[in-house]
Amino acid sequence: MSNVSKVSVATKRLLLGRPFRSDRLGHTLLPKRIALPVFASDAMSSVAYAPQEIFLVLSVAGLSALAFTPWVALAVAVVMVVVVASYRQNVHAYPSGGGDYEVATVNLGPNAGLTVGSALLVDYILTVAVSISSAAENIGSAIPFVSQHKVWFCVAAIVLLAAVNLRGIKESGSVLAIPTYAFIIGVLLMLVWGFIEIFILDEPIQSETANFTIRAEQDHLVGIAFVFLIARAFSSGCAALTGVEAISNGVPAFRKPKSRNAASTLFMLGAFSIVLLLGIVLLAQQIGAKYVMNPAQDLIGAPEGYQQKAMIAQLAHAVFDSFTPGFYFVATATALILMLAANTAFNGFPVLGSVLAQDRYLPRQLHTRGDRLAFSNGIVFLALVAIIFVVAFGAEVTKLIQLYIVGVFVSFTLSQTGMVRHWTRHLRTETDPRARRKMMQSRVINSIGLVMTATVLIVVLLTKFTAGAWIAILAMVCLFVLMKLIHHHYATVQRELERQEEDVVLPSRTHSIVLVSTLHLATKRAVLYARATRPDVLEAITVNVDDRDTRKLVSQWEASDITVPLKVIASPYREITRPVIEYVRRVRRESPRDVITVFIPEYVVGHWWEQILHNQSALRLKGRLLFEPGVMVTSVPWQLTSSDRLKNRDLAYTAPGDTRRALGGDPDRR
Amino acid sequence: MSNVSKVSVATKRLLLGRPFRSDRLGHTLLPKRIALPVFASDAMSSVAYAPQEIFLVLSVAGLSALAFTPWVALAVAVVMVVVVASYRQNVHAYPSGGGDYEVATVNLGPNAGLTVGSALLVDYILTVAVSISSAAENIGSAIPFVSQHKVWFCVAAIVLLAAVNLRGIKESGSVLAIPTYAFIIGVLLMLVWGFIEIFILDEPIQSETANFTIRAEQDHLVGIAFVFLIARAFSSGCAALTGVEAISNGVPAFRKPKSRNAASTLFMLGAFSIVLLLGIVLLAQQIGAKYVMNPAQDLIGAPEGYQQKAMIAQLAHAVFDSFTPGFYFVATATALILMLAANTAFNGFPVLGSVLAQDRYLPRQLHTRGDRLAFSNGIVFLALVAIIFVVAFGAEVTKLIQLYIVGVFVSFTLSQTGMVRHWTRHLRTETDPRARRKMMQSRVINSIGLVMTATVLIVVLLTKFTAGAWIAILAMVCLFVLMKLIHHHYATVQRELERQEEDVVLPSRTHSIVLVSTLHLATKRAVLYARATRPDVLEAITVNVDDRDTRKLVSQWEASDITVPLKVIASPYREITRPVIEYVRRVRRESPRDVITVFIPEYVVGHWWEQILHNQSALRLKGRLLFEPGVMVTSVPWQLTSSDRLKNRDLAYTAPGDTRRALGGDPDRR
Repeated sequence: MSNVSKVSVATKRLLLGRPFRSDRLGHTLLPKRIALPVFASDAMSSVAYAPQEIFLVLSVAGLSALAFTPWVALAVAVVMVVVVASYRQNVHAYPSGGGDYEVATVNLGPNAGLTVGSALLVDYILTVAVSISSAAENIGSAIPFVSQHKVWFCVAAIVLLAAVNLRGIKESGSVLAIPTYAFIIGVLLMLVWGFIEIFILDEPIQSETANFTIRAEQDHLVGIAFVFLIARAFSSGCAALTGVEAISNGVPAFRKPKSRNAASTLFMLGAFSIVLLLGIVLLAQQIGAKYVMNPAQDLIGAPEGYQQKAMIAQLAHAVFDSFTPGFYFVATATALILMLAANTAFNGFPVLGSVLAQDRYLPRQLHTRGDRLAFSNGIVFLALVAIIFVVAFGAEVTKLIQLYIVGVFVSFTLSQTGMVRHWTRHLRTETDPRARRKMMQSRVINSIGLVMTATVLIVVLLTKFTAGAWIAILAMVCLFVLMKLIHHHYATVQRELERQEEDVVLPSRTHSIVLVSTLHLATKRAVLYARATRPDVLEAITVNVDDRDTRKLVSQWEASDITVPLKVIASPYREITRPVIEYVRRVRRESPRDVITVFIPEYVVGHWWEQILHNQSALRLKGRLLFEPGVMVTSVPWQLTSSDRLKNRDLAYTAPGDTRRALGGDPDRR
Repeated sequence: MSNVSKVSVATKRLLLGRPFRSDRLGHTLLPKRIALPVFASDAMSSVAYAPQEIFLVLSVAGLSALAFTPWVALAVAVVMVVVVASYRQNVHAYPSGGGDYEVATVNLGPNAGLTVGSALLVDYILTVAVSISSAAENIGSAIPFVSQHKVWFCVAAIVLLAAVNLRGIKESGSVLAIPTYAFIIGVLLMLVWGFIEIFILDEPIQSETANFTIRAEQDHLVGIAFVFLIARAFSSGCAALTGVEAISNGVPAFRKPKSRNAASTLFMLGAFSIVLLLGIVLLAQQIGAKYVMNPAQDLIGAPEGYQQKAMIAQLAHAVFDSFTPGFYFVATATALILMLAANTAFNGFPVLGSVLAQDRYLPRQLHTRGDRLAFSNGIVFLALVAIIFVVAFGAEVTKLIQLYIVGVFVSFTLSQTGMVRHWTRHLRTETDPRARRKMMQSRVINSIGLVMTATVLIVVLLTKFTAGAWIAILAMVCLFVLMKLIHHHYATVQRELERQEEDVVLPSRTHSIVLVSTLHLATKRAVLYARATRPDVLEAITVNVDDRDTRKLVSQWEASDITVPLKVIASPYREITRPVIEYVRRVRRESPRDVITVFIPEYVVGHWWEQILHNQSALRLKGRLLFEPGVMVTSVPWQLTSSDRLKNRDLAYTAPGDTRRALGGDPDRR
């Protein structure tokens, strides 16, 4: 009791373990030039598939409808401007990295937040499926073999990504930057050179599809039907916006001033996206590129067995006609940024899971980092579901994209609603006229954002619901309900643990029982340790499973220098658990206010197969003893020499997504 | 220290829990009339397939060779007489139920014992495969549908048996008796009535195969080739001996005088087997029954699509021609006793496993009964391997039987060698002339047994090795090596635990650490319990995974009436395990002679999914802490209300095979 009684008031002390100096964290923060590629690969990569989807939808109405592509792309660009402007407000108001989930939860309540959470979880899955499928299409445009085995290629790529992330590779912002910059530079060069060829050199370049005609499914569409088609093209084009919200989740990883740097990065992201999107659409129109659902049926004039190329590949093929490395560079960069976008989801999924776990919507252990198992489960889950989607939809980007955008816009809309509320609430208390003016201005921007994103959401729902969006919505609803149930369970448990009437009484005495099977060093140590805790009663018990063994044990015990009495418990049915439980129950009946501690010697081993050979009965017994009230179970480990090899495993683990959470580059971590 | 110091000498006391009165055990002992069916179903059921295998092998040499069937059967009967006489000596000399394994281990050393153990394990697997396949064939003789889907039927039957045994049904000797007696009576009546029809009523009854001719594969076999064929037929016929050893494993389950009762039961078993075997072969010959490998090719005169019936079914069909219920009765009884024989293996396999585990050839927990998981693993393993064999050999009894008998005769031969040694050893010290005479006599019997079984083993090996026996031998060798390795591992660990130089020193002081995440009843109880153990140092620690949570915890802690200091450990990477391990290591470095106890509050829950939601971090941490020397880990359980439903599960479990080990019928067990 000596030291314990001295301390009569609770004290706290902040222990800063040497390897854990918080000031080190600054080292891992990202400069803008690295933050852009790290957070923008997802949004930027969507430029690889959004334009061709606009072409594809419009081509349903025949060649003439393709004239509308620049206007649809412009509409998408306008939405992009508005969304980027809105999110620049978000990163200033919520710099903690909670993103849309935080904005919705704080301003609209937990249900709105959970809706955003469900939408984003589904989105991450679809990001993997869509990005990988698009990567396969782009690689397939250069290597026909991949195009012929698209689904297998996608499954292999997802498995590879999952394996890399399970392995816990150390991420490096600079390495991640390469594909993104390569993509931006490659596509920009292609666009510039293409327009130079057309408008300055006056060389007539043409897509390989330029001479084909489109067999319109619905010719001469008029009125509402045509508007509906334009709306669908617009919805598909809005896929270009997926991933814009990523930066708002990553503010803490930016260098100071964090919010301002994040906002400028967002601006750059928006600018690049719009330039690439519009550039691709305009160039494609100039060179007469076409992209249809079923090339074999819909393209008149195409040769037998014609393999349709991805839109970017068509452009690169036409522009770099006489310069093959250019074509391969663009194709490779496109495939790489798409793979990177999928990898982003593998990073973001566990991070979002940890945020949801913090609010008890998912199992608690997901919250703590460095928990390899929790991260692994998330990664395996994400990979499996993404593979299911890829296989079910035959790795067709066009089909998968029907499911994709609804989640993004649910999240956008709720987030903007939350931001409007946020400014309104702050305006109620703010008195400084300059600050008020800025807030009013922000509120206007977010209001426009809300109107815009809500409109797009409605358009998307109207034009895509039956085409597949219902699957995404169903998945969101299921996740929402599941997370609600988990939350409810945690709340119930918490209530159970906070009942005040059941006051915990101080146990009067301690009764310690050491479980013995044979007399060896591990047993002796257990007895000594048990004695060191100075219990009021200390006894050793053994279960008589085998008469011969028991007799030997008893005589050894008597011959030894151990002064603790050994009781033999009969077990005619050669059981262990039952007699021990019965004995413990009897001890407890006789002195109900005692706390009983059962000491179990346990071997610590280094191989899984050793675990099968040892401790099984002890583990089973331990599991059962925990069900008895008033009983503590103490494991007294005995480290077998083989355990050395595992001793420091799992202590150094780099979780995927560390870079995005400013946890990546610390050299002390490895 | 009070009570502990009073007790200075180790004392022992035999605690007899009320439900465990050993005198109750007498109630479950088996009278001979029940013991016969319980232990003889395996041996008796082999009469269902042994005769037809003799016919099958001989038919290779054409119709004329079938004249030798009675002589081959007679040879098998002679072996049966010798083996039964030998095992009658075994049960007198080794009444403990260790069977061949014990006899071989005691007299020939552990390697011989382990060989027997491996052989018997393989045998149990093949018993399941052969018995179920034969049951399918017999049922198929009455219901063609089963015959057409034989493999599926067998797999389903094995899964069913496994499920029944996993469930832990209560066995009743009387229920087990029905199929065995039904089979004996049914077949006897069939034989008697058949011979009456032929010899007394002079009615010419004929098998449906009587008018077919056999297309001999090798006509006019002469010399060594013919002897070899006869030898092969004899080997196959020896399948009738499988299961005879079962009674020697079951002596403890007999009523007193155990050995004498077991010996008379063995006599009855032998008598019935011989009568049935010879009767079936003679009757089959009288009515011209035939049994060939490929009915479609080998039977001349058979109608298109003729489905060959099992031999017993052919007899029953011919004898009860005008009395269908008789046919169905014999077919049902045959199928049932074969199922029972397979069930026997499901009982015997874990029992043998427990004996091998006692000698540390298999994981230790297999030794304790009432360990549902250990038994379950054994049952699932047996079922899986049996299914593999059944599927691989297309549920063909003839093919499976090539693998079957080698194990049995390995076991027979080693056991008889052991018995000869046993008597020789005892004769060295025995002086009483009467006892010596008896021992000499026993030794002669066992010597004859040895010569006979060794001869059969050689014949079996010569005639069956390439036909499939090599697979069984390979399996035995693998098991032998595996069990040797397990034994070696246990021996190594034991040496490690008995090193005398590393004397365990009494720890000087105790340092207790309570792990806290939130302040609620479970935490409070953990602190109170930890205080009750009166450590020299007591502190609570919490890992700062989330600043907000930690601040809340600290202020609650200060406001509470807990007087134990709370330390906050920094964890910038949001880890739990690593900071705690580092802290514990530091404490240990500072005071190396202290024993550290880490108290972890743990929720006890009632559903597997609750386990996912709780304790995961605690469990992970616990697992890691055990690797640290000088650290004990104490679980302080908090039983959530949902845990009630599991509280008494697994305490009342009847393991399969209880009847055979005299553990079955105790009414207090449930």
